[in-house]
Amino acid sequence: MTRWKLTIEYKGTDYAGWQRQTNAPSVQEAIEKAIQAFCGQEITLHAAGRTDAGVHAWGQVAHFDLDYGSRPLSGYDLMKALNAHLRQGACILKAESVAEDFHARFSAVNKLYRYRILNRSAFPTIEDGLAWHIKQDLDVAAMQAGAKYLVGTHDFTTFRDSECQAKSPEKTLDRLDVWSRDYDGAGGREMIIEAEARSFLHHQVRNIVGTLSLVGLGKWSPEDVQKVLAARDRTKGGPTAPPEGLYLVRVDYP
Amino acid sequence: MTRWKLTIEYKGTDYAGWQRQTNAPSVQEAIEKAIQAFCGQEITLHAAGRTDAGVHAWGQVAHFDLDYGSRPLSGYDLMKALNAHLRQGACILKAESVAEDFHARFSAVNKLYRYRILNRSAFPTIEDGLAWHIKQDLDVAAMQAGAKYLVGTHDFTTFRDSECQAKSPEKTLDRLDVWSRDYDGAGGREMIIEAEARSFLHHQVRNIVGTLSLVGLGKWSPEDVQKVLAARDRTKGGPTAPPEGLYLVRVDYP
Repeated sequence: MTRWKLTIEYKGTDYAGWQRQTNAPSVQEAIEKAIQAFCGQEITLHAAGRTDAGVHAWGQVAHFDLDYGSRPLSGYDLMKALNAHLRQGACILKAESVAEDFHARFSAVNKLYRYRILNRSAFPTIEDGLAWHIKQDLDVAAMQAGAKYLVGTHDFTTFRDSECQAKSPEKTLDRLDVWSRDYDGAGGREMIIEAEARSFLHHQVRNIVGTLSLVGLGKWSPEDVQKVLAARDRTKGGPTAPPEGLYLVRVDYP
Repeated sequence: MTRWKLTIEYKGTDYAGWQRQTNAPSVQEAIEKAIQAFCGQEITLHAAGRTDAGVHAWGQVAHFDLDYGSRPLSGYDLMKALNAHLRQGACILKAESVAEDFHARFSAVNKLYRYRILNRSAFPTIEDGLAWHIKQDLDVAAMQAGAKYLVGTHDFTTFRDSECQAKSPEKTLDRLDVWSRDYDGAGGREMIIEAEARSFLHHQVRNIVGTLSLVGLGKWSPEDVQKVLAARDRTKGGPTAPPEGLYLVRVDYP
């Protein structure tokens, strides 16, 4: 029996999220089926985190156990074999054999999420489904000022989905950076928000981005972010930003 | 009568190319129809260059003449109005009134094309349709060495499509740069090839990229590029790289 760690890339637009569901295509099901097609075994994949429908991954991590007998199997060959059984929208970037106590979720020490906003009047074409479109000019400096209040250890109830199953609303946000860059040479900008933490609450990044967007639009002041954080009340926070802008970039292990 | 210059972005995957056709959706038709929906006039758009089916544009330029009577019309309002009549896949980034002797094609002094190759074993997911996928490792230094032979004024018959309508096969390639960068954190790389010239022959960039890919794969030496250029024979050149990796980035005017 070998435990395998998979690094997975997917376009969220093509799936109803990571988690296996009865009536909709999920990334988990696609990859579990590819593993079954390869080795004939029904296995269960354990992911570092479940992503919602529409959310993308540049580096989701999942593990599973495979009894491949005494035949040798390299990570490179497993990666290629699984990709041969996968169709458009999800692929295996890397397969590595790991210690039997490795757990994609519980062993993770850091996760990096990126959120992309296309900030211009014209709607996205090439990046359709790959970024949140906000037409009105966003004030980056104000968003940066607002973001500072969220870094550190806090009770994040204001930014927690009602369906979140975490035991505690307290999380430590190690980094929350906001910056922008030219996107199209005609004044359009891409705004990027990156968040790093050991773990996140359900919808935490999207709720933070939705709140910061109100600051960027000038509807809220940066200090309002501090106020709603202290309120520990989801109804006081900003809206949930749409899934298409969110990317699970990387999961780190010791 | 006002002459308008439009800067246009589109995802080539959604269209059968720039040029209006009888039985397939074209970018030209989509935008001409948007203009008609806005002002009720049938106009003809003149583009800086016709792009093939599947080729993308971050900054195509086209012009048209509009008789809008004595009512004032700003570029910003025209851009917004046309985007309201456009559907997914093509949008107007900018509309500017220009001198009546401006011509999108004949006034252009420089064009920048970018070609993107996703160089890794796993197929593209997020960038599906947005880059050429080459599985085998490409040798960037060899491609750079081969590219040098193409910069300058040459007879580019070897890299010219048989249907090219240009009067002369002689063109001046001002810049042809090749570089790579990490793409996915798992060893995958994005290779970028940028070409600048006042004008290009039909399929010139894609034929150059196809040829350089043979050098990158080690099938040809960098010097072979010089040999096939000197042969002035399309059958001696490499294959035509697929359209999905090509982007018309920018067209410059005096």
